Order: sequence, then structure tokens, then C-alpha cells
Amino acid sequence: MKDLQRILDGIHPLKKEYLKQAKLRLDSLTKPRESLGKLESIAQKYAAIKEDLNPSINRKVIFTFAGDHGVVEEGVSAFPKGVTVQMVLNMLAGGAAVNVLARHVGAKVVVVDIGVDHDFEPAEGLVINKIDHGAKNLSTGPAMTRDEALRSIKVGVELADESAKKGVDIIGTGEMGIGNTTPSSAILSVLSGLSAREVTGRGTGIDDKTLRKKVDVIERGIRLNRPDPQDPIDVLAKVGGFEIGGIAGLIIGGAFHRIPVVVDGFISTAGAMIAVALWPTIAEYLFYSHLSSEAGHKRMLERLGHEPILNLGMRLGEGTGAAMAISVIEAAVKVMTEMATFESAGVDKDL
Amino acid sequence: MKDLQRILDGIHPLKKEYLKQAKLRLDSLTKPRESLGKLESIAQKYAAIKEDLNPSINRKVIFTFAGDHGVVEEGVSAFPKGVTVQMVLNMLAGGAAVNVLARHVGAKVVVVDIGVDHDFEPAEGLVINKIDHGAKNLSTGPAMTRDEALRSIKVGVELADESAKKGVDIIGTGEMGIGNTTPSSAILSVLSGLSAREVTGRGTGIDDKTLRKKVDVIERGIRLNRPDPQDPIDVLAKVGGFEIGGIAGLIIGGAFHRIPVVVDGFISTAGAMIAVALWPTIAEYLFYSHLSSEAGHKRMLERLGHEPILNLGMRLGEGTGAAMAISVIEAAVKVMTEMATFESAGVDKDL
Repeated sequence: MKDLQRILDGIHPLKKEYLKQAKLRLDSLTKPRESLGKLESIAQKYAAIKEDLNPSINRKVIFTFAGDHGVVEEGVSAFPKGVTVQMVLNMLAGGAAVNVLARHVGAKVVVVDIGVDHDFEPAEGLVINKIDHGAKNLSTGPAMTRDEALRSIKVGVELADESAKKGVDIIGTGEMGIGNTTPSSAILSVLSGLSAREVTGRGTGIDDKTLRKKVDVIERGIRLNRPDPQDPIDVLAKVGGFEIGGIAGLIIGGAFHRIPVVVDGFISTAGAMIAVALWPTIAEYLFYSHLSSEAGHKRMLERLGHEPILNLGMRLGEGTGAAMAISVIEAAVKVMTEMATFESAGVDKDL
Repeated sequence: MKDLQRILDGIHPLKKEYLKQAKLRLDSLTKPRESLGKLESIAQKYAAIKEDLNPSINRKVIFTFAGDHGVVEEGVSAFPKGVTVQMVLNMLAGGAAVNVLARHVGAKVVVVDIGVDHDFEPAEGLVINKIDHGAKNLSTGPAMTRDEALRSIKVGVELADESAKKGVDIIGTGEMGIGNTTPSSAILSVLSGLSAREVTGRGTGIDDKTLRKKVDVIERGIRLNRPDPQDPIDVLAKVGGFEIGGIAGLIIGGAFHRIPVVVDGFISTAGAMIAVALWPTIAEYLFYSHLSSEAGHKRMLERLGHEPILNLGMRLGEGTGAAMAISVIEAAVKVMTEMATFESAGVDKDL
């Protein structure tokens, strides 16, 4: 925990001067003032995070953390647990949605086995850094120990460290883990005080009966484990998951190294909630990629006080929303750095 | 007019079989059913327009129609009229927002001088097909003759003809014309029956006083010219603009050749309203790129009954929204054609 605090202490508010200078630059470009809407605020934020008024986005990586969940044995998911393994293999073969969308936007996908119930052979694009073979059933006890929670965060922090060394310009978060909307809803419920019913959705597509069971499982898990809302590590340990811890760590490490992090959907935002609860300044380093159609995501973003970039009715996870948003952020940065100014193009300003 | 009717008669409803087959394909892919939201409906629509279940988007062109407007002499814009010329030159030099965003998504920008008050030298990326040196002041008489309106539509149709010959896979619309939110609002008012006040916004950024003047100018233009809402060509002629006619024609020609057309923002959607009023089936061939923050755009899309793909608070025109959406459409098509199936990847389906 001492290590983590040292990292958090190294995360400072964005420098206002960069926001201001980026705004001046944007206002000098051949367009009506603020007429590119979100693209302009995105470009400002990106410049301020990188402390660079002429940035370019070249190296883009999406980290897809994979983990299993003992709570699946309660029957809370539409898919069997083995699909986590199958989907990791699908991702390594390039056939999952995140692969297609990452290729489209020029991003690399790195799959991180942080807790899948399977021992993978080493493979290109796979990082094996397993805390355990799946989180435990949160409805019958804590999902993991406090030490495991901290270690899962550390996995993410270290990936951000390596990314910084390699000169990565933007990081996307993603995950794969059958059952992982259940811990995500539980985290939201604990940190927001909203009831399980209010924050629980259909995940990959469960029916009404399974949804009622899922709400009940989450309620039981919270009642039994009594996670302390003032202690985000306790919340992660008792009702979270390894991939959620990994995402929280990636976000913390990204902010520490001033690498903009693009948060995917519902499960990734649960990781962001843990990170931001630990150190609120981290919020300044995040882009929320999209509004997931998973029921609780809107609540999360409301609580975090951030607007998502896209709203495409997606609810797939993996990093698919992050991929789509990375392209928008890149577009925003190019606007700031590649457009002509009124002066350079000889265009009259407004009357 | 006979020619135009022949083209319209050649535009047929999408074949349901392609929509159905595309849906079956999407449901076979390794993802929860419908979990990619709008990307899935976009892919289905694209496949049905092209009548191809394995399409790829290679050639992408954004046509940016430029024209001037006599109504600018009433003081309805924040920018002087000469900016139309200056911005065309900026576009030809690659420095405008649409150039940056089109490059980002791999699209070519073609600027079409359909009515700028300036004689351009021939240039790479410029099509000169001028109807006149600007539309006339719609508040003191018709913006153009009926013959000019038909000719402006023909310019767009012919660009779609050429695009079809060249194998263009997707077309984006765009425009540049100081003052052109005024005719766009007027068209919306006439076709929707909404008052000028309800449909008029701030364009490039006018103040309250200028906004009141703009509303008054539109009201006077409609009262004086009495455009017939049942006759879209009459509406275009009396209160429209050449670039709006060109866009309407491009949309008509795109539908005729089954090339998906991505409609940019407020002014382009005014062109779409003219096209769809002429032949409602055309709506099936259009993608509405984004919700502009120009006040009347929401009203237009409501009337057309379509949801935009993006909502980034943009209001710049030129084809910037179309460029951003083209990338999303390409992503959607790649999902449909590049993802693994449950069978090919050996992934278990839902329980």
C-alpha cells in the first residue's frame, strides 16, 4: 500500500496553462469558435495531459484484462464460464470485436490474463500475470483478499510503466470475463449508495428471472461482505474482480505517466470508480469512451460527473468502446495540430 | 424535370432479404446478440444498400458544395461573404477542418463550385460547375429560378453518376457558403410548417440581435415568395441555395446508384429534406452523420424520423460530420465482415 500511495502522490492536477494555450490555438483555426464541439474540449484535455501543444497520437494500445468469476456458479450470466477462455483465444487469433475495431483505428490489442481459470500457453499479444484462477464467489465470501486486490492493481500499474517506456501515446482499457457485470454493479452500488436493483442490468443479455437472481446475488454479497465505501481497496477485494483491479491500476499508472487513458464501458468504468475513489485527481486524465447500454453505466458516469464521447448503443466490452473513441480523440488532436489558422490561410475572422 | 422523374422512378426500397441475411450474419459473430448497437444496424443497412453481404469500404469521397447567398447583404451571418472564396481556397490547400478529418478517415475531399461569387482557376480537387455567382437575396425575391434549381440538382446527380463509374463505396455530403443556414432554416420552416423562430439558430455564431434579424429575414422571404410545400423544387428555388440543390442531387444520384450517402449537418440535411420530399424511398439510402448543435437540426431529424450516428456538439459543416461518421460506418462494416463466428472460433453460444 505504501507503493501505491507514492504513485498516487505523484498524480497532479492538469496545468491550466496548457488548457488555455490549447484553447487559444483552437480559436486561431479557420472555423467558427467552438464549432467543433467535443473535439475541441478533447484536444485541449489531451494537450494538457501530455503537456504538449503539438502532440501526435502514434502508439495506441488497448489492454484487455481477462478474469473469471466464482459468482458465475450462481447463474448470473447468459454465457457459460468457459467462454472467457474461448474468447481470450479468439482475441489472440484476431477474431473478436475488439480486434476488428482496434485494427480499424490503428491500435494494438494486448490481452492480459490476470485471473482466467485456465493456464494459457505463451502467445504473441498475451501477457500472463495471473493473481489466481478466478475471483471467488462474492455472494458467499470476499471475491479476493486485500493483498490480491493490491496485486491486481499493481499488474495494471506495471503495464502503464512499460507503456511509458515504449512511448505509448494513448491507452484504452478493456476486459473479458464471463460474469463481470455482477461485480461491477456491486462496486457501483457500494460506492454510490444506490440499491442493487437500480444499478444492475442484463449484461450479455439475461432474461427477467436471471436479472432478479443477479440483483439478489449482489444484495447478498454486499450484506455478507460489508465492503467499506470509504476504502476502495476493500470494495475491490470484497465484491470486485481481478480484471477490474487491473483496469484501476492501468488508469492509475496512466495518470502517473501522463498517458491519456480511454475508459471502455461498464466494467472498465467500475475500475475507473475505484481509481478515482482512491485519488480524485485521476479523473482529469481520463476519457470516457461511450455510454454503454448496460443499465448502470449512466449512473456511473453521472456519479463521476463526466460525459461520454460516443453513444452508439454498444454493450460488448473488451475495449470496443475505447477503440471507437480513440479514433475520435485522434481526430480531435489532428484538428488542433493540422488545421490552417485564419492568418496562415488568409481567411477573414468573424465580423 | 422529366429526366429527374426518370431517376427517381429508378430508386426502389431496400430488399428485405439483405437486411435479414446481414442480421443472421451479425448474430453468428462472437458477441452477445445486438451488443454492438448502432454498429449492427448500420452494417445491415450498408449491406442492403449495396446488395452485398461481404462489402468493403475502400473509395470514400466527400463532396463539399460551395455557393454564395445574396441574403448575406441583410446582415444574417457572423462572417463576411468573401469568406466563402477564402475557405474554398483553404480547402484546396488542405487546411480546413474537413480536410483534416477526411484525411483521418481516408476520404478524399472534392470541392464543387456550384455558385460561388468568384471565378476560380482550375485546381486539383475542384470541380467547377457554377449555376450562377451566388443565389439571390431570398428576402427580396426568389433565390433562383426553377430552371436553376433543377440544374443545381443535376450537378449533384452527375457527380453521383461519376462516382458510380469510379466505384466509390461511400459518399459524404458537405458545403461551404457564408449565409447558408438562412436558406436551410427557411426550407425547414416551409416543409415542416414550423415558424421561422422555431427553426432558426446562430449559424457560425451570431448574437441575439442578429438572430432576431435572421428570423425576420426568413419570415419575410417565405411571405414574399410563397414557396409551395408540396413542390420541393419550388421550395429550393424560392428560399434555397445552389449548394443545397447540389446536395439534394448528390443524394438522389447516390440512392439511384445504390451508393450509401452520409449526410453532414444542418445545411446538408436541408438538401436531404428536399430529396426525401421528392421521393421518400431515398431515406432508406441515407446515413445521418451527426446531430449538429445548430438549433434547427434536431427538428429536421425528428421530421425525417432518423437518429444521427454521432452527437459531438459540432456545427461546422463542410462535411466534417460526414467524415467522422464515415469512419463509424466503416467500422460497422468491418465488424460484419471480419469478426469470427461462434462456429469458426469454437466459442459456446449463450445458455
